[in-house]
Amino acid sequence: MIKVGIVGGTGYIGQELVRLLNKHDNVEIKFITSRSYLGQCYEDVYENYRDILKIECTKQDIEAMSELVDVVFIALPHGIASKEISSKIINKTKVIDLGADFRLSNIQLYEKWYKTEHYNKELIKKAVYGLCEWNREKIKESQLIANPGCYTTCSILSLAPLLKEGILEEDSVIIDAKSGVTGAGRSLNLGTHYTECNESVKAYKLAEHRHTPEIEEQLSEISGNKIDLTFTPHLIPMNRGILATCYGKLKNKMTYDEVKAIYQKYYGKEYFIRLTKKDIFPETKWVKGSNYCDIGFKIDERTGRIIIIGAIDNMIKGAAGQAVQNMNILFNLDETIGLKDVSIFPI
Amino acid sequence: MIKVGIVGGTGYIGQELVRLLNKHDNVEIKFITSRSYLGQCYEDVYENYRDILKIECTKQDIEAMSELVDVVFIALPHGIASKEISSKIINKTKVIDLGADFRLSNIQLYEKWYKTEHYNKELIKKAVYGLCEWNREKIKESQLIANPGCYTTCSILSLAPLLKEGILEEDSVIIDAKSGVTGAGRSLNLGTHYTECNESVKAYKLAEHRHTPEIEEQLSEISGNKIDLTFTPHLIPMNRGILATCYGKLKNKMTYDEVKAIYQKYYGKEYFIRLTKKDIFPETKWVKGSNYCDIGFKIDERTGRIIIIGAIDNMIKGAAGQAVQNMNILFNLDETIGLKDVSIFPI
Amino acid sequence: MIKVGIVGGTGYIGQELVRLLNKHDNVEIKFITSRSYLGQCYEDVYENYRDILKIECTKQDIEAMSELVDVVFIALPHGIASKEISSKIINKTKVIDLGADFRLSNIQLYEKWYKTEHYNKELIKKAVYGLCEWNREKIKESQLIANPGCYTTCSILSLAPLLKEGILEEDSVIIDAKSGVTGAGRSLNLGTHYTECNESVKAYKLAEHRHTPEIEEQLSEISGNKIDLTFTPHLIPMNRGILATCYGKLKNKMTYDEVKAIYQKYYGKEYFIRLTKKDIFPETKWVKGSNYCDIGFKIDERTGRIIIIGAIDNMIKGAAGQAVQNMNILFNLDETIGLKDVSIFPI
Amino acid sequence: MIKVGIVGGTGYIGQELVRLLNKHDNVEIKFITSRSYLGQCYEDVYENYRDILKIECTKQDIEAMSELVDVVFIALPHGIASKEISSKIINKTKVIDLGADFRLSNIQLYEKWYKTEHYNKELIKKAVYGLCEWNREKIKESQLIANPGCYTTCSILSLAPLLKEGILEEDSVIIDAKSGVTGAGRSLNLGTHYTECNESVKAYKLAEHRHTPEIEEQLSEISGNKIDLTFTPHLIPMNRGILATCYGKLKNKMTYDEVKAIYQKYYGKEYFIRLTKKDIFPETKWVKGSNYCDIGFKIDERTGRIIIIGAIDNMIKGAAGQAVQNMNILFNLDETIGLKDVSIFPI
Repeated sequence: MIKVGIVGGTGYIGQELVRLLNKHDNVEIKFITSRSYLGQCYEDVYENYRDILKIECTKQDIEAMSELVDVVFIALPHGIASKEISSKIINKTKVIDLGADFRLSNIQLYEKWYKTEHYNKELIKKAVYGLCEWNREKIKESQLIANPGCYTTCSILSLAPLLKEGILEEDSVIIDAKSGVTGAGRSLNLGTHYTECNESVKAYKLAEHRHTPEIEEQLSEISGNKIDLTFTPHLIPMNRGILATCYGKLKNKMTYDEVKAIYQKYYGKEYFIRLTKKDIFPETKWVKGSNYCDIGFKIDERTGRIIIIGAIDNMIKGAAGQAVQNMNILFNLDETIGLKDVSIFPI
Repeated sequence: MIKVGIVGGTGYIGQELVRLLNKHDNVEIKFITSRSYLGQCYEDVYENYRDILKIECTKQDIEAMSELVDVVFIALPHGIASKEISSKIINKTKVIDLGADFRLSNIQLYEKWYKTEHYNKELIKKAVYGLCEWNREKIKESQLIANPGCYTTCSILSLAPLLKEGILEEDSVIIDAKSGVTGAGRSLNLGTHYTECNESVKAYKLAEHRHTPEIEEQLSEISGNKIDLTFTPHLIPMNRGILATCYGKLKNKMTYDEVKAIYQKYYGKEYFIRLTKKDIFPETKWVKGSNYCDIGFKIDERTGRIIIIGAIDNMIKGAAGQAVQNMNILFNLDETIGLKDVSIFPI
Repeated sequence: MIKVGIVGGTGYIGQELVRLLNKHDNVEIKFITSRSYLGQCYEDVYENYRDILKIECTKQDIEAMSELVDVVFIALPHGIASKEISSKIINKTKVIDLGADFRLSNIQLYEKWYKTEHYNKELIKKAVYGLCEWNREKIKESQLIANPGCYTTCSILSLAPLLKEGILEEDSVIIDAKSGVTGAGRSLNLGTHYTECNESVKAYKLAEHRHTPEIEEQLSEISGNKIDLTFTPHLIPMNRGILATCYGKLKNKMTYDEVKAIYQKYYGKEYFIRLTKKDIFPETKWVKGSNYCDIGFKIDERTGRIIIIGAIDNMIKGAAGQAVQNMNILFNLDETIGLKDVSIFPI
Repeated sequence: MIKVGIVGGTGYIGQELVRLLNKHDNVEIKFITSRSYLGQCYEDVYENYRDILKIECTKQDIEAMSELVDVVFIALPHGIASKEISSKIINKTKVIDLGADFRLSNIQLYEKWYKTEHYNKELIKKAVYGLCEWNREKIKESQLIANPGCYTTCSILSLAPLLKEGILEEDSVIIDAKSGVTGAGRSLNLGTHYTECNESVKAYKLAEHRHTPEIEEQLSEISGNKIDLTFTPHLIPMNRGILATCYGKLKNKMTYDEVKAIYQKYYGKEYFIRLTKKDIFPETKWVKGSNYCDIGFKIDERTGRIIIIGAIDNMIKGAAGQAVQNMNILFNLDETIGLKDVSIFPI
């Protein structure tokens, strides 16, 4: 059994990790830390665990934990993990950080977009960006995984094959993304007060969202070209799910089948990536509650653009599910263990 | 492996059966029938099964199916199963009917409330009402299970211990129930058109809902007294979940602990029934996506009433989940197999 | 023109007052006070007033305001108005308090249910309970109106005719009420965080909600008998609206038409109270955005009960609309001025 | 008083016309036609009109109606109005058609995108595209107004000033639009069944939506250049509102203030168009229930793009409200009569 510790286990992503790890056949949860619910029993924090999970929430001490577990999952706001994780820790245990601190290899970009100094520049070099389908081999050999962001995962998976094959004009990419409200977490905020976001839609952080450099850095690396793109997130009145509507200009005229062949080349054998049929497009309801990423596309012949739609569950493939998938890779398990649930419908 | 056939596998309850049975370790789905999607591949009907379930939807022929499977699940509108099921069929295979045709032992009640003749009066006698926690022993020995209704399950589980112990005035019971929109199924209807039921709440079928005689018959049998009650269902703008707010007059003054002891007597060992802590009350979100029934109560000292709140997922404990639980009982399996998922949150 | 001041004009009820008073032909808004948005322009607080309402939010000084306006609307949490309002103030201006401080004539009840001392016992005697349809004559002659609560308005209007006519057993009344989330106001709270209350339903404050004594006191006065009842509020995932499902035992068998005649006797000439047709029941969507209260009922012949359904917009008839209606009465205007909007549908 | 007839008065747009015209000071509704509810009283079709609107729904006979009313509003599916309207009719009465039949001046485009012959090619020449803020003068002199589509109104209003000033690269425009479910009307459809579209988001009709040529034709005319653009509509789980996120490449570097000056040049005096402040962006909740169009923008300096966000209520500014605004223009009334309501919040 893999012994795991979950740091920040009572936030939304933390509790999703708890759910997935608690039912994982090869895992034993040893610790759940929580600042807000310190000392409380997990079943008293989340009523869905009544009579099921009686672990007590403990104090956050990652160094001590690293002596006792095989892997630590960290689900904390950005800026904390880089202070708490050290080389000493990752020599003793594997670390999967679900925050942003180790995602950008370019420290200047981190400091510019996050408007804060980075506290652990050395460790960034040891981190591997945990986008499973693209970095599987590197992940296997790493002790520190930077689990990708939610918008990022959906955007990169949707665009990467086309950019890698070089069929899009590099400066033509726009991502118009739509997210459910869980993306904003459990902290109270007027913008996520029920009556403020229900029955309305809005764009936010235009040209300023922090997932932008993360998407650009990864796509640039994959494509071998510098990619600068426009990313616009929107808040949708629903609990879960991300839909990324991606636009790009085709360098040359292409048929549906030619593009499809590219996706099949990269994703044909990927369990968690599904291509929709022609003229069927992903909807968040079909991936909600699952670790799947659905991708479909349409060529707009009149304008020479291609429109790619990607859909994921932001809490699973976009966070906790991908983290568990990374763990499976790290421990040489079948990547799909504990992650095979299809979406419950309608839910 | 238990070979199963699912009749009516593309309605909402049918597809929930498909989901639960598809991931059940001891089950092999042999047939899914569908009139609406005859001949289509399941992954083309429900996109969440893309690349996962490639079974073709076949014609409904229960007699032929009964030769080939160990159990048939029937998820059809009322009035059909009683025509299609025969003694011959239940001699060959077990049948779990999720419709209403075999739930009422009193045929007159059936014909009065359903405003139709009953086509198979003989078979009713052989049917067992599949409320697992109360009829477990009878279920084991039956070939034909009448799976309870959704409102019914929640209402009976909430009230049965108190009525069995005789602490409520028999003529004082009122059930004010609230259901998500999946309760109305997948058939198109102005009342369940998104913009007609979103952002609104209403009561419907006042004093006329067909689950009323079902609740009364079962509670009368459990309590040993004739129970006539008022049942008012409401439509809530959400996908899933039933909350039953039940009211009864206490015959004598009782303390919280005395009532709690009654619930523990009947449900203390039940895996799928959870009692909330004092002054914590069930919410549908904590059971959604699971087979749990959560129950809590409050004594209103000023009026001598007790208020009991029950919550279930109408599609799982109120339909497909309980059907699988019945199957587990019928085949002498651990009742919880395939049903241990806790609710995903927030979803 | 009636000069008005609005105290607490940036909370949900306050801004609803602003909306209704701003478009009222006979009203001029002189002051809007706000602690949270002091000094800010109203259009910067609520973007729907962009380019429309450029009043600056000022400091709360009711005494100074009383010199300059004809009527003060107070939309503050309970416990404040009773400290801020004095005989001196109500000698100078009319006051319509939308809080709870002057609603209960029985001070002991106030102190018991609100768990606080009452700071202005003398003034309670001068206050009139502003339930327009029942207290119209008294309202006309008062300087201090206690505007009813939201649940209260809906519950009393639904039950009062039947209790006044004495056709219900006095100890048989149960009110099972459902409210949209605006009922909880704009203050941040985990329970009204979008992802915590969306797609779920729950009961709360069982046997303890503060509107209970208010309903009981008014119904007791109207009926001439002491009424003790059970009141259970529920939170519904929608922005607005209250549905009250009321239950009572009929003393004697009655026909639909007999009961209907009672409602017509009391409400036949009331502009804002509408009786639905037989077997049509109120839904919150038909009153949302309006000052109407819709009422329908069903006799449950099997149990001798009557079920009455009332529906209002909690923010309008249950708060700001009724307050404006009270103002119209106080100033001898047609009661319907500024309040004739029907609900927008679907919204 | 202007005598009006409403053809198709029980669909969603029809009933919104009824609401706005019923409260318009200068209007008398003479006829409401309905095929679905022929012969029924309006209050029995829509319960929000109980006791308020007792007009009977009559048979559709536009020619007869044209003798008796000053203006006919037509709210029918496309393809019908072009058959029913004739020169004879528009010689007798003004016609405001809320359908698509007279919106495109290019018949080939109509027949290509609507996949049907156009039945009244002559009349197209007499029709004026009723986008009030841009075509006011032409509207005044016309007898036949083609009321713009919902997506169209929002998209054109957002983009027109920038294209007219020629600051965007003509082939760079992408519109990613999000609509509430009322946009799909009241006809039953699996895609708008509550449980199918609730809690999910999807794109639809990629590169094929019929509002595309309408947007292109108008923007081409306004800009003087041929505009081909990509338009992607999305379905959002909410009742009302459209948000259009528009992207374009700036020909030259521009500052926020320079772009703002352009918007002010065209819209500075427009009552119904509001520019948000810098770094505040439109949200549908602030325009819902109103005739406003809110517009905001952001310059993405890194990529040289501008992102423009427009928001309207699809049923009001995007349909019935703009139709009433057109009527006001046609009859030389103040354009804002009957349309000054701000959005109700939160609703």
